[in-house]
Amino acid sequence: MPRIAYDLLHDTLVRIVTSLGITGDDARLVARLFADASRDGVASHGLDRVPRFAAAVRDGVVDPVARPVPVAAHGALERWDGRRGPGMLNAHRAMARAVALARTHGIGCVALADTNHWMRGGSYGWQAVEAGVVGICWTNTMPNMPPWGAAVPRLGNNPLVVAVPRSGGAHVVLDMAMSQFSFGALESYRRRGDALPVPGGFDADGTLTRDPAAIEATARVLPIGYWKGSGLSLALDMLAALLSGGQATHQIAPEPGREAGLSQVFVAIDPSTFGGSDAIVSAIVDDLHAAAPGARYPGEHTLAVRAESMTLGVEVDAEVWARVQALGAEALRGGE
Amino acid sequence: MPRIAYDLLHDTLVRIVTSLGITGDDARLVARLFADASRDGVASHGLDRVPRFAAAVRDGVVDPVARPVPVAAHGALERWDGRRGPGMLNAHRAMARAVALARTHGIGCVALADTNHWMRGGSYGWQAVEAGVVGICWTNTMPNMPPWGAAVPRLGNNPLVVAVPRSGGAHVVLDMAMSQFSFGALESYRRRGDALPVPGGFDADGTLTRDPAAIEATARVLPIGYWKGSGLSLALDMLAALLSGGQATHQIAPEPGREAGLSQVFVAIDPSTFGGSDAIVSAIVDDLHAAAPGARYPGEHTLAVRAESMTLGVEVDAEVWARVQALGAEALRGGE
Repeated sequence: MPRIAYDLLHDTLVRIVTSLGITGDDARLVARLFADASRDGVASHGLDRVPRFAAAVRDGVVDPVARPVPVAAHGALERWDGRRGPGMLNAHRAMARAVALARTHGIGCVALADTNHWMRGGSYGWQAVEAGVVGICWTNTMPNMPPWGAAVPRLGNNPLVVAVPRSGGAHVVLDMAMSQFSFGALESYRRRGDALPVPGGFDADGTLTRDPAAIEATARVLPIGYWKGSGLSLALDMLAALLSGGQATHQIAPEPGREAGLSQVFVAIDPSTFGGSDAIVSAIVDDLHAAAPGARYPGEHTLAVRAESMTLGVEVDAEVWARVQALGAEALRGGE
Repeated sequence: MPRIAYDLLHDTLVRIVTSLGITGDDARLVARLFADASRDGVASHGLDRVPRFAAAVRDGVVDPVARPVPVAAHGALERWDGRRGPGMLNAHRAMARAVALARTHGIGCVALADTNHWMRGGSYGWQAVEAGVVGICWTNTMPNMPPWGAAVPRLGNNPLVVAVPRSGGAHVVLDMAMSQFSFGALESYRRRGDALPVPGGFDADGTLTRDPAAIEATARVLPIGYWKGSGLSLALDMLAALLSGGQATHQIAPEPGREAGLSQVFVAIDPSTFGGSDAIVSAIVDDLHAAAPGARYPGEHTLAVRAESMTLGVEVDAEVWARVQALGAEALRGGE
């Protein structure tokens, strides 16, 4: 895959985002979050998503000028309305508010209704740990995963993020969907002609399989841990909907291009008044590394990819980059 | 399996617990939590654990008279020291305090250091929902699960509980360890001569297997979702240790009889000031039930087992019940 300089990627994205009606600091933030995802090796929720995001704004699924507003508060717990604005801006503001609440109350929680796809969930974990606090957040999604024991998609894959700060910057950031593989991952394996490393879903006969194409055909992706991930997905959806007062997965349009009105939860915890935690986290990391040469903590690989991207350039899919460049050129012409 | 009346089970346990040096309401609470676990179909963390609990008190691993104390507070976030007292009493007090904090601040968090095994984690989820609030809690454990990519147990199976209240009592309570099967479950399958329904760990050749005996021999149990459950287990351990200031998994003695000084986190959320959530949760449950006849929410099966236990008696393992009765008789003699 070709590599391009981070700054070129970022500046191209600023132009596109601005042309969509998002301005100033907000445009730079959206561009940065897309660029950072690709920089960190998560192009599926970075550059690859930009054309779909642009279409969602143009189709009216995402309102580029809407910004989230608080609608209810009880101490360290707040409920915000995302007003169908850009999901990345909504999520970033919600986590920022949770961090502020945590500084005041030790822990803070913002439940966000009526928002849109937040792209890479890990972004908001990185945001929290870069502010020096623990971040936990999750989102519901459109129905895209059958519950354990069923063949029809009723659950979301509801990504969950858990982020633990370290003073040196080697933060721990777990970002995991409740499905064993995303549809994007299935597509990647299929294109490469590879079998999945472990079973990822069911084929047309209802048998667990490692064949990505067979799973794409049935759309019966497997929850992590079978019945366990199915239960956790359901519980996360319940919490997101009931705390925010927003939509549950069963109410969200089951089409990628129309998926809108999501519910999310952002929790931040600031244990700094209790004294340092660096030694505790570092000792756990050291013990993990001693277990096996290949044992890594969540986020460890990210930092390696990030460093490589900043030195050599950000890896991009040539076809996607061509489409994004075309959007950027179109934005320039529109601005003349 | 024989069935015995709940009251007989409970009263026998009160005698035993009292003879161990736990008195009054505390004795009745410990007895109730053990009895309730068996009543709800979780005998592995109910009656089956009573002999080991009695041994832990006699061996000095559990201090029967120690009670937890608050050591630091920052608004809605508190740190408590469990002082190696009975894990069930410590956990129950910690969740009760988190619930009180949630009533004041909307959300509350108690991190508990230096505690002992809490037996059935779900107990503290039921405690929260019976108080009408959301409950989330987890514990670390001794090292009993290899990280993904390693063959030696460095992670705990670190059970996570997520509980969502419903006004009718049909609460949603998810109680899941990060391993696909507990060692207790592996033993049950082996005794029945059954293969596991899905792969549960690695055999001596390092191959994933459904043979429970082969996994017991290597002790290489599988994290849920392979690398995902491995990462989540690590993150939960980090949070428990850093928020409580207590031990991480790598510091906990890796023997069931000596496992002590655990770290736990209890979170309660009270969204009641935002208005009712029953309709939201019920609609999610209805949608799940519509997916397939066998689709159940976490806790649904528990309620069915509970009702049966209260009508027909609580199922007990005959051998375990004989041992518990012997402990009860011994307690009576000691009290004369």
